[in-house]
Amino acid sequence: MSEVELIDWRHQQFVLHEVLQVAQLTRYPHFSQHSIDTFDAALELAQQLALTQFQPHNREADLNEPRVRDGKVHLLPAVAKALAAYREAGFFAAGADETDGGMQLPYTIALACDGLFAGANVATAGYPMLTKGVAHLIAQFGTAEQKQRFLQPLHDGRFFGTMCLSETQAGSSLGDISTRAEPIGNGDYRISGAKMWISGGEHELAENIVHMVLARTPDAPPGVRGISLFIVPRYRVAADGSVGEDNDVRLAGVNHKLGQRGIVNTFLKFGEHGACIGHRVGPEHRGLAQMFVMMNEARIGVGIGAIMLGNAGYRYALAYARERRQGRHPDQKDPQSQPVPIIEHADVRRMLLQQRVYVEGAHALALYAATLVDTQGHDPDAAVRARAGTLLELLTPIIKAWSAQWCVQANDLAIQVLGGYGYTREYPVEQFYRDNRLNPIHEGSNGIQALDLLGRKVLTDNGAGLRALLDAMASTIESAAGQPELIAYAQALAQYAKRAADATLRIGSELAAGKLRQGLANASQYLTVMGHLCVGWMWLRQAQTASAALPAAHSADARFYRGKLHACRFFFQHELPTIEAALRLLESMDSSVYDMQIDWF
Amino acid sequence: MSEVELIDWRHQQFVLHEVLQVAQLTRYPHFSQHSIDTFDAALELAQQLALTQFQPHNREADLNEPRVRDGKVHLLPAVAKALAAYREAGFFAAGADETDGGMQLPYTIALACDGLFAGANVATAGYPMLTKGVAHLIAQFGTAEQKQRFLQPLHDGRFFGTMCLSETQAGSSLGDISTRAEPIGNGDYRISGAKMWISGGEHELAENIVHMVLARTPDAPPGVRGISLFIVPRYRVAADGSVGEDNDVRLAGVNHKLGQRGIVNTFLKFGEHGACIGHRVGPEHRGLAQMFVMMNEARIGVGIGAIMLGNAGYRYALAYARERRQGRHPDQKDPQSQPVPIIEHADVRRMLLQQRVYVEGAHALALYAATLVDTQGHDPDAAVRARAGTLLELLTPIIKAWSAQWCVQANDLAIQVLGGYGYTREYPVEQFYRDNRLNPIHEGSNGIQALDLLGRKVLTDNGAGLRALLDAMASTIESAAGQPELIAYAQALAQYAKRAADATLRIGSELAAGKLRQGLANASQYLTVMGHLCVGWMWLRQAQTASAALPAAHSADARFYRGKLHACRFFFQHELPTIEAALRLLESMDSSVYDMQIDWF
Repeated sequence: MSEVELIDWRHQQFVLHEVLQVAQLTRYPHFSQHSIDTFDAALELAQQLALTQFQPHNREADLNEPRVRDGKVHLLPAVAKALAAYREAGFFAAGADETDGGMQLPYTIALACDGLFAGANVATAGYPMLTKGVAHLIAQFGTAEQKQRFLQPLHDGRFFGTMCLSETQAGSSLGDISTRAEPIGNGDYRISGAKMWISGGEHELAENIVHMVLARTPDAPPGVRGISLFIVPRYRVAADGSVGEDNDVRLAGVNHKLGQRGIVNTFLKFGEHGACIGHRVGPEHRGLAQMFVMMNEARIGVGIGAIMLGNAGYRYALAYARERRQGRHPDQKDPQSQPVPIIEHADVRRMLLQQRVYVEGAHALALYAATLVDTQGHDPDAAVRARAGTLLELLTPIIKAWSAQWCVQANDLAIQVLGGYGYTREYPVEQFYRDNRLNPIHEGSNGIQALDLLGRKVLTDNGAGLRALLDAMASTIESAAGQPELIAYAQALAQYAKRAADATLRIGSELAAGKLRQGLANASQYLTVMGHLCVGWMWLRQAQTASAALPAAHSADARFYRGKLHACRFFFQHELPTIEAALRLLESMDSSVYDMQIDWF
Repeated sequence: MSEVELIDWRHQQFVLHEVLQVAQLTRYPHFSQHSIDTFDAALELAQQLALTQFQPHNREADLNEPRVRDGKVHLLPAVAKALAAYREAGFFAAGADETDGGMQLPYTIALACDGLFAGANVATAGYPMLTKGVAHLIAQFGTAEQKQRFLQPLHDGRFFGTMCLSETQAGSSLGDISTRAEPIGNGDYRISGAKMWISGGEHELAENIVHMVLARTPDAPPGVRGISLFIVPRYRVAADGSVGEDNDVRLAGVNHKLGQRGIVNTFLKFGEHGACIGHRVGPEHRGLAQMFVMMNEARIGVGIGAIMLGNAGYRYALAYARERRQGRHPDQKDPQSQPVPIIEHADVRRMLLQQRVYVEGAHALALYAATLVDTQGHDPDAAVRARAGTLLELLTPIIKAWSAQWCVQANDLAIQVLGGYGYTREYPVEQFYRDNRLNPIHEGSNGIQALDLLGRKVLTDNGAGLRALLDAMASTIESAAGQPELIAYAQALAQYAKRAADATLRIGSELAAGKLRQGLANASQYLTVMGHLCVGWMWLRQAQTASAALPAAHSADARFYRGKLHACRFFFQHELPTIEAALRLLESMDSSVYDMQIDWF
């Protein structure tokens, strides 16, 4: 088969430059040394590394899971080689300041680059994703001394990082963690406990591993208000930065997963010999709030990973469907006529369109959210910063959960396009499906994202989040209503958004009245509705841009814009109306789920 | 964790005895020796064998794929052992006449038994499923001499069978097959060609393998009208039934699949040395019509397999959710209170209810369709037989495709209920998900089932199929309308059915006007609509029965009936309305998919 591209580059350029106009980020002094050219250069470099270093061992790493020998994790040599190339190219410090040797890229561009690596090999890409999250956390909350010891090696890719939150008895319920931290002075603590589901928890890829560990101090109040955050290196790091003795963190097991097999997932024991030292980050009992900085980043990271895995399946299925010939049209009666490429069959086009609208719609939404990160961090106007932050907070659970759910669905459709071949390991689409299936689970399961969205994000601050979203949508709707071919979509989006907003307020008043269980019972349906609205909004924005550009466009460009317009039509005809049923459940405060008794199962 | 049952036995009894009243099948002379007791004895025997012989090696067979050494396929010894026990218990001849040593069970009971084996180990259960299909085909179309040579050994489980339809260049497009059959007299032919995707194509489990091969004779017209059917044994069989020399069928490769790894899937070459003899079944060029007998049976078999894999995940997730404690209700503020079993969380109940309504609804539909097989075969009234046949024809693609799609969805939800654990191979739910993902693909992909349903089944014979379905639904709707708690569901079903019928007729007139491509472009949406209607109908039937039985029921029985009623409510509130969007597309003859140009991708 022809070579399959990592992404439709034209689509990526379109979203970044034409729809989101990321060049405007260079008006912020922090990014003033950048330009469209430097952005594109970073993206092209990422693509080249992803294709030459990450993608080639994607299947091999799937077939050769990490092995444990003598307490050490052994990975394919190709993983270390890919990460060395990544390090050399400077991507560990993509977002770091130039004064720290970083590229000082906007988060938007860095995230798009992350997506290219994840689409090529989500498992290998996981190591630097976590490492960058840890660096960001220490940069934000660490002491000057902690930054000196840990931050630069993380930026340099000499140290890798992990998030140590879950424990076997407390997966999603962080208030129940029992890892202990006993103070020994100077902000240092003796750590003891065990952590489960730790990706990248043990390996020989880096000089050191920096575990960010949530634990309880002896006098801590119960629940999430008693959690503190610690830097727990695998090897202790001296004041001069030299990596020293073992810090009593032991690999107690590895998990054998359905997918993402190339990234080791571990069960770790801390302080079995009383010799595990952790360095507290920020004040005691504020650990969870700090960790949320990393978790929110990780949630957007999960979203972009899910999207790019969905995209990988879509691009493969599209290329396959153009080449594979089978069957004829229902009105072609001559059995001796040549079979047609399967893309000619309407149902195959339907499956490709579905994949496209999920993947490209979610991609636009994730990149849009990334621009909010940049705005929140760098806009000179405090009100603009705050507003971007509010909207970002609301969009984060949607980007994580909606992308994960619907891009796994895209992978399912990619298998279906390939038929029997898609079901074999001779083709890559079954791996994308398995790899992507993790995304609705980790970094807060989709059900928890839904509770976060409905129970917190849309309603806090008197519904400021919801208002920010509706206002942003309204401005698109208003301008789209001036483009005749888009009026119907603008109206549909406006109507659904109005209904969703009304339902939100109604549920909000139930919650305010203390009916928490009833009010939140259909939270997952709510997330689906809001996700479809946001993705519909992104399709409308893309269609607007395409529609405006089309009259002056020729040949390939014109076809591209027509494709975007048609994908928008498909989303509004086939996909957006599927929220009707969920919306009615929310509008009627349906209690079918809430009323179900356990002993009726 | 507590032991997980293969199926909710109470549900199975309820559907078979209370809803479908299978005891009535014993009024047919062919089944007069049977009774509720003999039916239950067969089911219990199947369950016991499934639990003791099939289930224990389900994971082991997944982890140890068939290996090829010296051209032979090596399987786990446990597979042969399980099939020996199956053979000994007489299940190869479950449906065969007693005079042939069979159990002479109604198809309904035999299918329910098949489901128990498939739920325990779908891969190992695949060998006898295929074998019984081949036996049925030869019983129906073979000559007396063919029956003597091949049928009894199949009934005895000494010979196994396969279906050899697909070729690498012609997966779903059987008109394009190129395997040749040159007559050599006496109805025998020299076969040459290659067949792809042949499950059970080579192994040492049986004395012989009987391949049912589609091929073209030299003078055959092109396309499907030129296909003939042949018995092609792996080893030639003498007139006295003795198994003789090699028949020049060579294993040319095995496929490495995402799931169902325990059943070897092969690429076979026939007649490389000009020494492959096939015995024609029925007249020349009528092969496909005959093969459809086996395919239709296989499609219902795929349906029951998909359902029982969905069920296996559901039962596991349900048991897990009752035991696993994590988190608290949103109104439980005390972090020191004991975490609740996760089934207490509304979203977990939602996921369990979804699994339940897909699995149990589809199970009821498949068993209902099985009663139509029995009616079609044995009712004394020709009109009743014909009507059952018409309805069965219409339901077959729905049972195959809808069950496959939604029961994979159930498996997806089972993983989600288990969270991170569900994503590991330490728990069985990820295997169910992988195993089940084959079902939307094989035996005619879901897209092809949809074309079959809309392009043929509902409209043929002036819409006799559609009328038969609507009449059958109407009788349930009418009687349910007399039960106050069911009126709303009866009305909803009636309204949706009316809209679907109107849309069908409208599409039918487009098709009749020659607009085949446009009219069939949304066939998959059509199948989803019809599937949801049929499953909704089955939920209404179950609710009717439960509602009638509830007043006199106590304790466990009362809870069971309430559970059925509540699941019905959930289906009608949460699931049935999801067809609204698809129905609107059909009603408006939406052409978004049809209009999409290939160069817009």
